[in-house]
Amino acid sequence: MENFKQNFMDFSNNINPLGLSENIKRDISENVGLCEHYPIKEHEKVINIISEFENVPKDNIITGNGSSELIFRIVNCLKPKKALLVSPSASDYEKALDANGCAISYHRLLEKNQFTLDETIIFQLTPNIDICFICNPNNPTGQRAPKQLLLRIAKQCKENNIFLVVDEGFMDFVEQNELYTIKDILSDYPNVLLIKALSKTYAMCGIRFGYGLCYSNDIIFKLKKSSPRFTVSTLACVAVNSAFKEKDYMKNARLLIRQEYEFLREGLENLGFVVFPSKANFILFKSNQINIADKLKEKGFLIRRCEDFRGLGNTYFRIAIKDRESNKKLLEAISQVI
Amino acid sequence: MENFKQNFMDFSNNINPLGLSENIKRDISENVGLCEHYPIKEHEKVINIISEFENVPKDNIITGNGSSELIFRIVNCLKPKKALLVSPSASDYEKALDANGCAISYHRLLEKNQFTLDETIIFQLTPNIDICFICNPNNPTGQRAPKQLLLRIAKQCKENNIFLVVDEGFMDFVEQNELYTIKDILSDYPNVLLIKALSKTYAMCGIRFGYGLCYSNDIIFKLKKSSPRFTVSTLACVAVNSAFKEKDYMKNARLLIRQEYEFLREGLENLGFVVFPSKANFILFKSNQINIADKLKEKGFLIRRCEDFRGLGNTYFRIAIKDRESNKKLLEAISQVI
Repeated sequence: MENFKQNFMDFSNNINPLGLSENIKRDISENVGLCEHYPIKEHEKVINIISEFENVPKDNIITGNGSSELIFRIVNCLKPKKALLVSPSASDYEKALDANGCAISYHRLLEKNQFTLDETIIFQLTPNIDICFICNPNNPTGQRAPKQLLLRIAKQCKENNIFLVVDEGFMDFVEQNELYTIKDILSDYPNVLLIKALSKTYAMCGIRFGYGLCYSNDIIFKLKKSSPRFTVSTLACVAVNSAFKEKDYMKNARLLIRQEYEFLREGLENLGFVVFPSKANFILFKSNQINIADKLKEKGFLIRRCEDFRGLGNTYFRIAIKDRESNKKLLEAISQVI
Repeated sequence: MENFKQNFMDFSNNINPLGLSENIKRDISENVGLCEHYPIKEHEKVINIISEFENVPKDNIITGNGSSELIFRIVNCLKPKKALLVSPSASDYEKALDANGCAISYHRLLEKNQFTLDETIIFQLTPNIDICFICNPNNPTGQRAPKQLLLRIAKQCKENNIFLVVDEGFMDFVEQNELYTIKDILSDYPNVLLIKALSKTYAMCGIRFGYGLCYSNDIIFKLKKSSPRFTVSTLACVAVNSAFKEKDYMKNARLLIRQEYEFLREGLENLGFVVFPSKANFILFKSNQINIADKLKEKGFLIRRCEDFRGLGNTYFRIAIKDRESNKKLLEAISQVI
């Protein structure tokens, strides 16, 4: 079966530059026979391994068919009337809220501040808001919010009875992420659901696996009740169990990303683009040449147009950070098309 | 990774007795690398192949993470206030309705009629009902309803503005199923969603793949809108594309099932059980020895207790129909424990 992107060098999907590991591939291939049965035992193992990795009790973990499914599910469960979203940010939050007829107001991140999240969001977390989504680091900007700010947001939400969903789908790419994740404060904030996925971190978008951490028994109960028993496939369980056994994979990825981030940033700036600072595995930049993505496609390179991100227009583009050789080729191709 | 059922002969899960085919296993193993990407192209292929197999336009097909996910999704979309369910039947309908706070009334199938669905259900399809679920053939009874009756039900539902979900998850096990499926009448009944899955028919419960056929553009639009873009994993797409290429697999399964059904039915009746007629790949029987499942488990055989099916008690059991050797062993084990 061919993949439609196989002939392209794909910078549009912001996955781990190391690609899907050989160990995970092997474990999946060797366990295909398990698909005859429902993943009862395999799912138990997943819960155990996440509990150990995140240092969170098993009862506070919920799994889903990708983090996007968990986003839709929490909205379905809570049926919020009014939401606050950050703009620009990932589009799934808005889609899930729209599907449920929830009104949305936006906290606009400002380009002049390089799209950083700051304390002005606090003033918008008023009692009429039912739910708020924060993506940290943010997609597509790559900005990582200070932990102190996240704490203030969680506190404000708690006081105003707002449910807060923090999406740390890219957090494991961040250097010293243990200083920035909010997982250690969750037990004080049962109004917070922290969601993560392995799609990007382990380069397995097609596996469909995400998980949520929450200290509200009521929320966990509702989330479990509102979906079928088996939302996660057997091979997703196998892949996750395999992924968490990888010792140096994420460490190596973080090293590579930091090094290549500097290389790409400098390269893009030298080519005249406005480059926004990123702590994640991708870079947002601005070009006055709006047809750059088309021209690059002709040359065999896919980059992510950002016009469908609310708050960004057709002059913004996102690229994944890859290995040096690929990054060099991309910069070369860009220099040829501008 | 070990499976907890590996040391048991499993008659509790009603999957295809031929097991997961070697071709499907091979195709999955060979395509693990595709998991790096979202299954855009693979999903397109799935839609094409289902369209061809079911002879239904592509726009009328919806896919889901198992048929159970589609059941939860349709309930989420329609937010019905009052439902009619058949009892006994599969439990997912009730779970999905419960999670949405929908009131449920039941059409009770009678043991004296061998749990057959008959026209008395029509009188319960009154205008106050918003949604009705019919499983055909029914799980766990194995009864297949006459097509004429299904037509009357669909018509009554249409007239009374009731949305009808028909679950044909086991239909492909039925001999001459083309005479009993309602897929050819769907275009006249946009109030009907027909759902199917490959979990049981291709012995791949752990793959999580189901699909729905419906001629209401509005319903298809709502179903698509209320879930993330990628609900089906890459390897599920690969497995489905592989499954539909199997030429004789289902034909051979149907032959085996009919032959072994007679063998098991006679064997169970000779052992003194009440056996209910089945057109599917499993058999419901009644035993006055309620500990038979425990005793069989001690001997290494798993059978399905049916006490959690509304309308059945702890004297009912369901067994999957397997190959002759396995069936012989089961009958032998049963004869030893009673």
